[in-house]
Amino acid sequence: MELKPIGIIRTPFSSQDGMPRSTSQAAGAKGTIELFGPFRAGLKDLDGFSHVILLWQLDRSVDFHLLAVPPRQTEPKGVFATRSPHRPNPIGLSVVELHGVEDGVLHVERVDMLDGTPLLDIKPYIPASDSVSNACTGWLGSRGRVDVNDQSA
Amino acid sequence: MELKPIGIIRTPFSSQDGMPRSTSQAAGAKGTIELFGPFRAGLKDLDGFSHVILLWQLDRSVDFHLLAVPPRQTEPKGVFATRSPHRPNPIGLSVVELHGVEDGVLHVERVDMLDGTPLLDIKPYIPASDSVSNACTGWLGSRGRVDVNDQSA
Repeated sequence: MELKPIGIIRTPFSSQDGMPRSTSQAAGAKGTIELFGPFRAGLKDLDGFSHVILLWQLDRSVDFHLLAVPPRQTEPKGVFATRSPHRPNPIGLSVVELHGVEDGVLHVERVDMLDGTPLLDIKPYIPASDSVSNACTGWLGSRGRVDVNDQSA
Repeated sequence: MELKPIGIIRTPFSSQDGMPRSTSQAAGAKGTIELFGPFRAGLKDLDGFSHVILLWQLDRSVDFHLLAVPPRQTEPKGVFATRSPHRPNPIGLSVVELHGVEDGVLHVERVDMLDGTPLLDIKPYIPASDSVSNACTGWLGSRGRVDVNDQSA
């Protein structure tokens, strides 16, 4: 299937140095999403949602690796057990806070992607379908779990 | 960008009649995911996760609508404020329970897509990044919220 960007994500991160490795490490990281003109009508009613799911193109990922050693690990993990950018279909997924929508621009927080990243889709975050606070996180252990004292949860 | 399926999702639903409209309505709906041979090595270590995020191709969605009236609504909503299959980039997203992995096949529950749906990606569900149990759900109101007595949450 052929996908085309519907907008551009603007973030403070021009390189991976200092970029959050996940949204869980991106509190305070603010960005904007500039939807291309033809798609802006589709933003109607989105501003009532506090969080949105962004699907985006890992456009600076040039290849995929079925096995790779994640940061701070010593053994290789399967790519589908990681959020590595080097995936067979290079689609990124981030749950971000939505602060506002105006003139086709979304103001968001908790961004964990590079500046200029092509946007593929925006979906409303719906806890009844999307939130599983007590999910087990395999090799990630406690790093993947929600801290009940964490205000971001 | 060009994407290629990495597997096929098998579900009990050969048509939209009786298919859950979201994973929140899909408790008990079991399916399997058959990964194509070349990608199976990437499943290593996935079985420690209780939930996974599936990205899949809305392959029977032939067009998109920026505004549409959702079920049981009277006013049109913007497509990015809905989970409508008729999106500019027709990618579906489902958080499903992972019951096991064997020989390149995932056994899952809470499927809400048609049988034969092409799979694009599998990501481990990581509550610290992916779970926001108290998110506001705009026009969806209480239907989108997690019931604290709901065991699926």
